[in-house]
This record gives sequence, structure tokens and C-alpha cells, in this order.
Amino acid sequence: MKTRIEVPDDTLFGPDNLPYGVFAPEGQGFRVGVRIGEHVIDLAATLADPVFAEPNLNAFMAQGPRRWREVRDRIRELIDNEVSTAAVHLLSDVYTKLPVRVADYVDFYASIDHATNLGKLFRPDSEPLLPNWRHLPVGYHGRAGTVVVSGTDIVRPHGQRRTASGTPDFGPSQRLDIEAELGFLVGVGSELGTPIDIDQFAEHVFGVALVNDWSARDIQAWEYQPLGPFLGKSFATSQSDWVTPLAALNAARMPLPEQAPEPMPYLHGSQPWGLDIDLAVHWNGETVSHPPYSRMYWSPAQMLAHLTSNGAATRTGDLYASGTISGPAPDQRGSFIELSWGGAEPVMVNGLRRTFLEDGDEVVITASAPGPDARRIGLGEVRGRIRPARWA
Amino acid sequence: MKTRIEVPDDTLFGPDNLPYGVFAPEGQGFRVGVRIGEHVIDLAATLADPVFAEPNLNAFMAQGPRRWREVRDRIRELIDNEVSTAAVHLLSDVYTKLPVRVADYVDFYASIDHATNLGKLFRPDSEPLLPNWRHLPVGYHGRAGTVVVSGTDIVRPHGQRRTASGTPDFGPSQRLDIEAELGFLVGVGSELGTPIDIDQFAEHVFGVALVNDWSARDIQAWEYQPLGPFLGKSFATSQSDWVTPLAALNAARMPLPEQAPEPMPYLHGSQPWGLDIDLAVHWNGETVSHPPYSRMYWSPAQMLAHLTSNGAATRTGDLYASGTISGPAPDQRGSFIELSWGGAEPVMVNGLRRTFLEDGDEVVITASAPGPDARRIGLGEVRGRIRPARWA
Repeated sequence: MKTRIEVPDDTLFGPDNLPYGVFAPEGQGFRVGVRIGEHVIDLAATLADPVFAEPNLNAFMAQGPRRWREVRDRIRELIDNEVSTAAVHLLSDVYTKLPVRVADYVDFYASIDHATNLGKLFRPDSEPLLPNWRHLPVGYHGRAGTVVVSGTDIVRPHGQRRTASGTPDFGPSQRLDIEAELGFLVGVGSELGTPIDIDQFAEHVFGVALVNDWSARDIQAWEYQPLGPFLGKSFATSQSDWVTPLAALNAARMPLPEQAPEPMPYLHGSQPWGLDIDLAVHWNGETVSHPPYSRMYWSPAQMLAHLTSNGAATRTGDLYASGTISGPAPDQRGSFIELSWGGAEPVMVNGLRRTFLEDGDEVVITASAPGPDARRIGLGEVRGRIRPARWA
Repeated sequence: MKTRIEVPDDTLFGPDNLPYGVFAPEGQGFRVGVRIGEHVIDLAATLADPVFAEPNLNAFMAQGPRRWREVRDRIRELIDNEVSTAAVHLLSDVYTKLPVRVADYVDFYASIDHATNLGKLFRPDSEPLLPNWRHLPVGYHGRAGTVVVSGTDIVRPHGQRRTASGTPDFGPSQRLDIEAELGFLVGVGSELGTPIDIDQFAEHVFGVALVNDWSARDIQAWEYQPLGPFLGKSFATSQSDWVTPLAALNAARMPLPEQAPEPMPYLHGSQPWGLDIDLAVHWNGETVSHPPYSRMYWSPAQMLAHLTSNGAATRTGDLYASGTISGPAPDQRGSFIELSWGGAEPVMVNGLRRTFLEDGDEVVITASAPGPDARRIGLGEVRGRIRPARWA
């Protein structure tokens, strides 16, 4: 039996979007699907390719851009015509999981407004941007094994924090924060010793996910000198369960903000582009911020070119995130340490003064971008609720 | 046909050692083996367990300490008696590969002499040890995807370096260095949200490898503020091809050096121990340093307890390394930036004045430890040769 899928006119998930995920109908195993409107098409049941029967996107992502285009075209044909009824599920009827087996996770620091805000907060007596910031996309490695899917509860982490006396104590973080980010997923890896040319971005990157890089600011502040953030970040990083293919973001491409000084040749693409993606941060249901990805200083292609400029290999499933997305206005800040200015200027949430996350709080980050024909496309959401520390 | 394996009296690889690796006889696939003297026993051909037919140790490592003991006992029985001739190979006749599929890679900074030396070199006008150093084992995440097996050539990385004018340029690293380290491999992982108690170390850690964490000091110095080392390290980390099981290091356990202030409870084991392992660094065949692991401030169990104290999950194949091992004497330094004091005091190597690595240089790091009965056991070697930058 075949069916024609109902696609609401005002959906953010029409045939120009088509994000991929990994889902399981009740009582069945996980397999690859594609979202259309409020439905999921089971690609394992629809397309004759074993990569879609895998419990993650990695095998499909490794097939490369020609195959990604073929599959996208084929899915549109199916939607335009009819799909086997057994292969169509209501989104609300299925389970989703982390769609990608993450290989290495890198986090950048590509927002000039975010880096400037944190510089002012952490080093009030000096230039907010460090000397290297405008020359290279600053980044560091995070913990791939604690990337979790949207919806996973976040247990408040314990850690060492500096006290007023100068010596540290150990206990549940008191400055638990979010970082609203975009993550880029590598489909086709690259060999050790072979940098990825900045113009080869689309040969390697499969798509985009929303990322919330939970951060314990008190733990981070005490531990991070001189080797960078460690336990202040590694307790959890949440990723959306649907991955937007790069092709869906063609209409969202836009010129980069001015870069001065001019980027070095290896960071200078022939057609530099950024992405006009609007994020929104919802704190216990109240929208507290609208971070604009359009303001990001370093482009996705510059980040990948830099990451591999030393010859570092990449692998299918590598995730690199943009770092916190903040705009210049107070209501465009992508972290609570910025929104509350280090805790000094509480934010009103549902009529209550708030600074950092409290137990039971839920944060949802959503995003959308221009699509073709003046329609918008959605990037889904990344959601997480704070649970109390386990062994207080 | 059966054979009795010849084990030389003076070997560092007798029946008290028995390191595991992954090897392939000429023309055959990779499988798990154990080293005895100058031979390898094919465990896939000898023990009826499919984990040994895998091309890495991960499945065996995941089986846990009871099984690790059983297998070690069984191997000793085989060696005491006779092994099927077809299952015994000369070490010199087989290929080896990276023995572990590395999940997450963390690098610590656990040597007080190394941290003090680098503090003096990088921050000559202030206290060499930062305020957090004696309170927690400082660490950060590295790139798991560029961990390579001993013997892999290391291509000199390109990167941005600060110039005398203050602005950076881009080119092959001029300050390419080594870091002589010990790496600890997690066999049995732990769940998100559940720290590993310091006394549970042996339930999780399978064994030890030698690690050379190649470092481009010029790239690192320019990039590392404020988020830590990134491209200055991520081009390659070499690991020995044989993994010494923890059980082989029982006789090497020794008291830790004094820790002041007293470690917090979560870092305070009931029976704190360090390891009496002697490393040696060979630069183009000349032994230039003897780093003593016995001097390490933070213990292997403290590092693991700290790594998971925020609830971070661990996985089979996680590798965490000690950081550079240096002792207090000049000829005990585990990196060339220390040995040459930032390049200011060249080292004599084969009659030539040397500071950092030149193209064609080969570095071999070896190590041994006390075994039972006044015999020593070997930890093998980690070897690498510098190849010229590819696109100078």
C-alpha cells in the first residue's frame, strides 16, 4: 500500500529541508530516516542501500557528496509521488538517538562578540581579544564520548572551584551554563599529512547540527590554565537528533563579515561564505536570546582548513562546533554568563531573576534559515534539562 | 606439531611481562598476539575466543580484569608447556599496527619537574607552577584520530608562528619537539554521570603504552591562549605497538612522592601508588635523557578519578597519557625544549649541537621496570622519524 505524505504549507521541514536522523519505531531497531513535515520516512525500507539500516549516519556520510545528492533527489521524487505506507511514521511515534558516531570533537571560538564578551569578563584590565584571535580560528579538542542526543538529561557536575579564601573546594557546579552553537559533521575524512583545502569544504562536510556545549564556569575558571577547558566542558555536550544536509542551506549562504587583517592564504577561500541562520534560546519556555549565526567571524570552511592545516587527519563522524554564537546586542548572547554579565546582571525568566542554571531548568535551542522561494527551513532543536548533582 | 618457545635468560620480555599487540604474519590479516622473548604467540590461533581474531585489542580489553587474569594464566601455561608451531612467529617476521582503536585521548601534565621547567621557560617573571597545579591533575583533550603506531613517519607540520615583528607567518614548524610519556588504556568503560572511584582503577585500566606526544612549540606558543594546545599537538601522537598489562607492573608499584597540600578526598586512594619505570630517550641513536616515572606527582589512579569526577563517561579504548615525564636533573628531561632550555642551551648529539628536531631525525623512547625476582621487564619502544614538510 502506498501513501502520499501530507506536508503542511507552513512547515519548516518541507522538501527543501530533509534532515537526516536515526530513529526506531516502537519495538523495532534503529535505522536511518529523513524528516518531512511531521513524518519520518524509513530509508532502510525505501532505498536499497544497507547504509540506511545502520544505527548511525556514518556509513551514509562516508559515501560522499555525489551520493548525498542522489539520495536527496530520490527522496524528493518519493515525496512528489507516493511512499510505501509501512515506511512512513509520525515523528511523535518514534524514538530518536544520537545520529552520528562521533569520532573527534573540536570546539571553536569563532564569534567575535562572544570572544570579546568573555575577554571583558575574564580579563577586565586588558584587551578583550587576545593577539592570535583575528589571525586564526581558535579551537580545542573536546570529549567525543560525552556527546549526547537532544533530550538527554544533564546531571549537574561536581568539580573543584576556587573559593573566596583562594584555595579550592569540591562540589556541585554553581555556575552551570549553556553555549548555543552550530556543529559541522565530517562525512568524508582526509589522510594524515594532507590538509583540506578551504575550497574543498563541500567534498568533506555532510551537514549541520545544533549543539549545546554545557559549561560549568566555576570548574572551567579554576582548571583552564594553562592547557584549556577540560572537566568544565567534558560532562556533556548535547546535539540535535536531526542533521541538516549542507544542500538545504544553499539559500542561507551569505558574505562573511569583514575580516581584518586579511586571512592568510590557507584561510582565504575563492568564494568566502557565512550562513544566515537565526538561533533562539528558550529557558524554561521563555525566549531569552536570538543569537545570529550571520555575525560569526570565522567561516565553516575556514575552521576546517585551519583544523587540518597541520596535516591532522579527519574521519567520518568528526564533529566540529562553532563555539558560542553571540551577536553584538545583549539579547543576542548565546551563553548565560554573557546574558547575565558574569552573574552580575540577572535575566528575567518567567518573572524570576536568573543568572545560571538551576536544577529542573530546561533549555531548548532552535534555529531556522532562509530556504528557496521565501520559505524558511528549520534546524530542529537541541533540548536538555538539568538534574540535581548525584552525590552531593 | 608443537614447539617449546625459546626464551633468552636476559630478555626483558619473559613470562612475567607478556605484552599484548596486534600483528599480521606476511600475507595474512591482523589479529591479537602476545610477545614472549623475540616471539609472538598468535592468540587467535591458540585460545578459543573470537576477541583475539579482531584487528585491535578493544574487544579483549572490554572483557574486564577477571578475564584478563584468566588469559594471562593460560598464556603462562602454554609457555611452560608447548604451543602449536603454527601459532608462533618470530617478532621480526610480522607486521604490527596500532593495537587499540582509540576512543578519547586525554593528555595530563602530571610531572612537577616538567610543569616547573615549562613555567620557568614560558613565564620567567612569575611562579612557575600555576595556583591550580598542586590541587588537581591538569589535563586536556587531544586528537584521538591522529594517534599513530610506533614506526610511523612524522611529517613536519605547517602552522602559524609569531614572528619578531609581532604578526604571525605560516610555514613548517621550526621548533618540533617530543614529549616522552606513559599512556594508560581504559578497558572497561564507565557510564555518564558515574565517576570512577580512585580505588576502582584496576577494574577499568587494562594496561600501559609508551607515548611520544610530538609537539610543535612555535605553533603551540602562538595558538594556545586561552583554550589550550590544538594544532601544535594534533598532527601526530605516537604509541608503542605493544601494551604492557597492568599485572606485569605489580613489582614496579611504589609510594607516591609527597603531595602537599593533601589531595581532596576524591583524589585520595586507600593505597596510593606510583610506578618505578625508567624511560630513556634516544636521539639518532644517542641516549640523551633518562626520565624517571617514579617522580611523577599525580598517580595513574588520581588522573582517572579526576577525569571522571565531573561524571564524564569513559569508553573501551580511551587513552590518557601522563604528560611529559621529567626528573629534576638536566639529563632526566623528557622534552627537547627542556633539554635545550628553550633552544638556548644546545644538546650534543653525535658530536653536533642540537636544539629541536631536524628532518631525518629519529627518536626512540624505551622503558623498563622492576619485575619479580630482580628481573626487569621491558615496555617496548615508541619510534618515529621526522620527514620534511610536504608543501613548503
